[in-house]
Amino acid sequence: MKRRILLALLLLSPASWAGSPLVLQSDFGLKDAAVASMKGVAVGVSPDLGIYDLTHDVPVFNIWEASLRLVQAAEYWPEGTVFVSVVDPGVGTKRKSVVLETRSGHYFVTPDNGTLTFVAESLGIKAVREIDEAVNRLANSEESYTFHGRDVYAYTGARLAAGIISFEEVGQSLANEVVSIPYQRATFADGVIRGNIPILDIQFGNVWSNVYRDTFRKLGAKPGDILNVRVLNKGQVAWQGKVPYFTTFGAVELGEPILYLNSLNDVSLAINQGSFADTHGIGSGADWSIEIRK
Amino acid sequence: MKRRILLALLLLSPASWAGSPLVLQSDFGLKDAAVASMKGVAVGVSPDLGIYDLTHDVPVFNIWEASLRLVQAAEYWPEGTVFVSVVDPGVGTKRKSVVLETRSGHYFVTPDNGTLTFVAESLGIKAVREIDEAVNRLANSEESYTFHGRDVYAYTGARLAAGIISFEEVGQSLANEVVSIPYQRATFADGVIRGNIPILDIQFGNVWSNVYRDTFRKLGAKPGDILNVRVLNKGQVAWQGKVPYFTTFGAVELGEPILYLNSLNDVSLAINQGSFADTHGIGSGADWSIEIRK
Amino acid sequence: MKRRILLALLLLSPASWAGSPLVLQSDFGLKDAAVASMKGVAVGVSPDLGIYDLTHDVPVFNIWEASLRLVQAAEYWPEGTVFVSVVDPGVGTKRKSVVLETRSGHYFVTPDNGTLTFVAESLGIKAVREIDEAVNRLANSEESYTFHGRDVYAYTGARLAAGIISFEEVGQSLANEVVSIPYQRATFADGVIRGNIPILDIQFGNVWSNVYRDTFRKLGAKPGDILNVRVLNKGQVAWQGKVPYFTTFGAVELGEPILYLNSLNDVSLAINQGSFADTHGIGSGADWSIEIRK
Repeated sequence: MKRRILLALLLLSPASWAGSPLVLQSDFGLKDAAVASMKGVAVGVSPDLGIYDLTHDVPVFNIWEASLRLVQAAEYWPEGTVFVSVVDPGVGTKRKSVVLETRSGHYFVTPDNGTLTFVAESLGIKAVREIDEAVNRLANSEESYTFHGRDVYAYTGARLAAGIISFEEVGQSLANEVVSIPYQRATFADGVIRGNIPILDIQFGNVWSNVYRDTFRKLGAKPGDILNVRVLNKGQVAWQGKVPYFTTFGAVELGEPILYLNSLNDVSLAINQGSFADTHGIGSGADWSIEIRK
Repeated sequence: MKRRILLALLLLSPASWAGSPLVLQSDFGLKDAAVASMKGVAVGVSPDLGIYDLTHDVPVFNIWEASLRLVQAAEYWPEGTVFVSVVDPGVGTKRKSVVLETRSGHYFVTPDNGTLTFVAESLGIKAVREIDEAVNRLANSEESYTFHGRDVYAYTGARLAAGIISFEEVGQSLANEVVSIPYQRATFADGVIRGNIPILDIQFGNVWSNVYRDTFRKLGAKPGDILNVRVLNKGQVAWQGKVPYFTTFGAVELGEPILYLNSLNDVSLAINQGSFADTHGIGSGADWSIEIRK
Repeated sequence: MKRRILLALLLLSPASWAGSPLVLQSDFGLKDAAVASMKGVAVGVSPDLGIYDLTHDVPVFNIWEASLRLVQAAEYWPEGTVFVSVVDPGVGTKRKSVVLETRSGHYFVTPDNGTLTFVAESLGIKAVREIDEAVNRLANSEESYTFHGRDVYAYTGARLAAGIISFEEVGQSLANEVVSIPYQRATFADGVIRGNIPILDIQFGNVWSNVYRDTFRKLGAKPGDILNVRVLNKGQVAWQGKVPYFTTFGAVELGEPILYLNSLNDVSLAINQGSFADTHGIGSGADWSIEIRK
């Protein structure tokens, strides 16, 4: 008898019935009912799901940025978390609807249109399955051609997070690869670090690079060192200057530039309580790169 | 003994104590503490409620749009869901505070100022009750005249969603009618479909009509057919042109127009990866209408 | 046996395992992954936490406004609620990371940089502790110098809300005081009420003062009375006029001004369905004040 009770309590433990967290991302904005409809479908699947937003302000159709936001957030979420990302300029065309399971134990439900570029690379591909819409689609939604985000992705993500379907029940297994957006990798050679500027920290105007701490260390810079930095747009110098490397903003005066490791441990440029990007007209994307020399 | 345990477990089941979902909508925006105060009141009523946002970016005092957002989201939420909508230019005047129970089993807590126009029409009126503020009002809030959204609507919605009060305990029963905003209905006659443009899909610039799939079918158009479309503002032609009907955006080239059924199965106009509304200066509301001929 | 079950059920009761609500505020915006990373950390601490947003649209580095938003929301949340506020221009410098327990039983996790000004004053200081980052910091985050919001504040707030640590386990006790921003208090003397304009109700353009109902009453004004109002910027008259005092917007015509008590019971100026602030060029902050005479 005791065992039965203990078992029952175990089954009742919050982690078991709340399922995994469900995290939603899109380019829908929050001004209309689109995101709320996705959440309604998820709540209809299971009223106990923990549903969270990554962001719904991905610039419209910007798959590159959707991919970056996913990788920036994912590692801070527990294993088993199910991410649904819907930035889908090709909705209704033949791009596949997939679920990626990463080696880190996270799940990503999305059109396979490049959205998975960075999580596949950083967290590793464990398995990829194509969503079988014959079973994993909201009932009576067959005639709605344009809102896969609600009828397929949110629905499937919620069922996976709630444990109603297993990963295997998503659909058939695909090869261990995803559609990847080409971009310049971070390198260190001949005393020069090169990298891409994938994104701006728009709220504060900081310039983020894809040069991770481990690569940066090859330069041998210490806090307080003055570094030679060039920012290039399509290979042309857009800005160059000397910037001190510090670990905290407080180490430089207000209005002064700083090179630091951001919250993702990537090399970044900022102006203390100012906007590096606005001040120097720096953008982000495939065309923007950075060079750092001692 | 076993039965008692099973009963206890049953009572503990998530659906029973989590109550119904509570979905909030307003024109308050998310920049200040207004929405968070509403949520605090709801959490104070029951810490286990699932609280969700529809949108808080309804344009200020725009009852028409509040009504549309409700109907767009509601059908995707489970029976029993309690919606609280506070767009209330008449706060403090004699408009009634009501809860509508629809035939679909959803509840809407709101000032009866037109906000219920579309849900009443689409989901049907089962019953309407006036909120009795003598009992359904946050304690010690009597001297605050201007935030019914928090003190009356969020509080009552939370108590209803948590099962603390029944629908009957909201207050006295009213006639089965709500305040309705007049607007042009969708029609098909003499080979012409006419309808209203209730809203733009602002994130993407698509033009949504109130012409539902069933009405559109009377035209007998098939995917690939070129249709003659006129958009009118106060009866004057604002744009006219030929637009192909397709079921997916991918069927037309980038930058080309398309007539399709949107995620609500209403006739809509879009430009593939462009903005139909911006390109052609189209607006929405009572003054805007559409005509479609083969 | 029965007792064990009852005990077990008691332990399982929602209030006990859901912990206290966790409410997040920042100046990070919702366009990138920063807030979602904070939430991921909190969910990783306990998947059952109720996590809510106050606002993430505090103007960048605006500690004054962060402090106001906290006090506006806090009293509507239950005792035990844990607020995490991260507006932190001094990140990485020597400002202390603290948790304030107020006399009202709320907790505030934040850099002690002025953010606590208004809650300390309104809700009272019961105790202050400095966060001991040796134990209250996300594992493996030591090399990330710039995102205390995620690694320290969200992590510590979540652990406190989930009951994993007690308030005492936050870190060492400090003196019962916090960093306070100086500002002009509301006064009544010689028939004149004076006060500060801490904030605009930006969504509606209403002008809010720090003159609470109790102070306002000393003027002896009754609904319908016409009051003489002056708004000053750095002591210079920016606007003056006669404004009727009413308890509801509906008492004045559209487009007419009104003096009323807002949802916080503070004296406020509005134009019925218009923007008082925009119409008359009124701002907010330490430089703006108001005078009211009968």
